[in-house]
Amino acid sequence: MLRIGIDLGGTNIVAGVVNDEYEIIAKAKTPTAIPRTPEEIFDDIAMVCKQAMAEAGVTISDIYSVGLGTPGTANAEGVIEYANNLGFDHVPAKEMLIERLGCDKVYIENDANCAALGEAYAGCGNGAKDFVAVTLGTGVGSGIIVDGKIVSGTNRAGGECGHSVIVVDGEPCTCGRKGCWEAYASATALINQTKAAMEKYPDSVMHDLAKEEGKVSGRTAFDAMRRGDIAGIKVVDTYIKYVACGLINLVNIFQPEVICIGGGICNEGETLLRPLRRYIESERYSVYSKIQSKIVRAELGNDAGLIGAAILEG
Amino acid sequence: MLRIGIDLGGTNIVAGVVNDEYEIIAKAKTPTAIPRTPEEIFDDIAMVCKQAMAEAGVTISDIYSVGLGTPGTANAEGVIEYANNLGFDHVPAKEMLIERLGCDKVYIENDANCAALGEAYAGCGNGAKDFVAVTLGTGVGSGIIVDGKIVSGTNRAGGECGHSVIVVDGEPCTCGRKGCWEAYASATALINQTKAAMEKYPDSVMHDLAKEEGKVSGRTAFDAMRRGDIAGIKVVDTYIKYVACGLINLVNIFQPEVICIGGGICNEGETLLRPLRRYIESERYSVYSKIQSKIVRAELGNDAGLIGAAILEG
Repeated sequence: MLRIGIDLGGTNIVAGVVNDEYEIIAKAKTPTAIPRTPEEIFDDIAMVCKQAMAEAGVTISDIYSVGLGTPGTANAEGVIEYANNLGFDHVPAKEMLIERLGCDKVYIENDANCAALGEAYAGCGNGAKDFVAVTLGTGVGSGIIVDGKIVSGTNRAGGECGHSVIVVDGEPCTCGRKGCWEAYASATALINQTKAAMEKYPDSVMHDLAKEEGKVSGRTAFDAMRRGDIAGIKVVDTYIKYVACGLINLVNIFQPEVICIGGGICNEGETLLRPLRRYIESERYSVYSKIQSKIVRAELGNDAGLIGAAILEG
Repeated sequence: MLRIGIDLGGTNIVAGVVNDEYEIIAKAKTPTAIPRTPEEIFDDIAMVCKQAMAEAGVTISDIYSVGLGTPGTANAEGVIEYANNLGFDHVPAKEMLIERLGCDKVYIENDANCAALGEAYAGCGNGAKDFVAVTLGTGVGSGIIVDGKIVSGTNRAGGECGHSVIVVDGEPCTCGRKGCWEAYASATALINQTKAAMEKYPDSVMHDLAKEEGKVSGRTAFDAMRRGDIAGIKVVDTYIKYVACGLINLVNIFQPEVICIGGGICNEGETLLRPLRRYIESERYSVYSKIQSKIVRAELGNDAGLIGAAILEG
C-alpha cells in the first residue's frame, strides 16, 4: 500500500510516496515562496505530489491516502484555521487537496504532530505506541502519541508542552505566559543564557568562540564546556537542568515508552542525553517503577514530518 | 448489562452493581481494617461484591465484568505492584478476584484513574472523550482520559500531573522533587501558605477563624477573604494563581473538553472556579482557539471511583 506524505513548510513544500515499510520511495520539492495565495500554494502542492508519483511510477489510483503536515492548527474538518508564517486563515486544505488530486482519503495535521508520529512509527520510536517527541529549536516543539495516535485534544491545538510553565513568574515567553519551558529550554533560551554568562565572565573562552563563529549560537557554551571553561560548564549544566525539568514533567504525566529529542541542540548527542537520563532516573515518579522511558535522539531529521503525514488516519 | 465496580480504599472497601446508565443499583461496604494480609482483604472484597449482587437480586452470571480501583500502581497483568497504605507488594489482584468471584472479565486500575473515568462518562464530563480530573486534596491527584481511555503510559504509573514542577528549585515535594504543582496547589500547601500568612499578619481574622475551628484548614483563608481580610485575600489569590498555572499547563498539553476539579478545596465552588476560568482564558495556547476547555466541579463524590472501576475495559 502506498501513501503520499506532504511537508508544507515556510520555506519548502516536499511531497513523497511512502510504502508500508515507511520508506520514502520517491520525493519532490518546490519552494513555498511566501507570500502567495492559498490557491497558488495548493497548486504547487498538487504539482509536487504528481512529480513524486511520476518518479515512483504510480498514479493517484495506486495511492491509499494523502496526508499533509502544516504549521498552525488544522481542525477536524481539515481546515487550516490559522498558520501565521503562511498567512493562512481558515484555508480548506482537505477540500483543496481532494479537488486537485482526486483522492478522497485526505488528512491534515499540525507538522510537529506529524513529525512525532513519523519518529514513533518509523524512526527512533521503533513502533512505540506511547511516545513523546520534543524539539529543542527556536522554540520547544512537541508531539504526543498515546496508544499509537496523536494527542491534540478537542480543538486539535494540544500537545504544546513547550508552553508549560516551569518557573511561576519567570522569563517572558512568546506565548504571553511567564516562565514557560520554551523560555528556558529552547535554543533561543540557551543563546540568551550564554550571552548573559558572557557578560558576567569577560574572560570566558565563549567570547573567542563566538568571534570565530561570527555569533553566539546554541553550540557556543557546549564548545566552551568541552574546553574546560567554567562559565561554559555552568551555562550547560543549568540549561540541561531546565531541559530535564520539563522532560521529567512529561515522564510523570505520560510514562512514554520513548522520549525523542530533536532540533538543533540534539546534535550534542550523548553530551546532552546522558545527563538528561541521570536527572530523569533520579526524579521520575515513582523511582521504583522498573519500566522506564528511553531517552533517544531523533533519527529521521527532515523526513519525519513527511513520513508522519503519510501515516495519518481518520 | 450489569457490571461490578469496587473501590478499595485505605479505610473502606465498597462494591456496587452498576447498570448501563452508570447508576449504582446496589452497594455494599466493609472496613478495610488494615493491616491485614492480601488474602483476608480479597476475601472481604469478594464478600461485599456478593452482598451487592444479593441486594441487586443478581448472581455472577448476570455480571459482564468486574473492575477494581486500587491505590498505587496495577500493571497490565492485573498485579498491584505496590500500594503503600495497604502494604501491598506485587499482589495478583486479578487472579485473586477471578478465583473468588468466578468471573473472567476482571480489570484492575489505579483509583484516581478510575475516578477520572467515572466523572468523564457518568459525572461532570457528561461523556467527554478528552477529559482531565484534578483533585485538590492532601496531594494533587489527577486522572487523564484521552479518546475515552485512561492515559497511564507504558508502566501504568502515568497521569501524575501533581508531580510536574511549576517552580524550578521551589518548595520540596513528598515525591523528592522540588517545586511540584502538588507542593503549591494541594490543600496541604494551602494550609502551609495560610499559616505563613498568619505569622506575617498577627491581626488577620484568620487567627480567630482558626481558633473557632480548632485548627488551620483549607477553608481558613477562603473564610477570611469572605470577611474582607487582606491577608486572607492575598493567600487565596496566590493559591488560585498556583492552581491555575498547573491547569493551564494541562490545557496546553491536552486541550480537554472538560477539566474536573475535585477534592476538599472544590467545595469553594464558583469562588474557586470563576477566577480559574479567567486565568485559563487569558493564558491558554492559543487564546485564539474558539473551542475552550470547560472547568467544572466534580459531581460524583465518593462514587466516582466505583463507577469508573465498573466501566474499565481491557
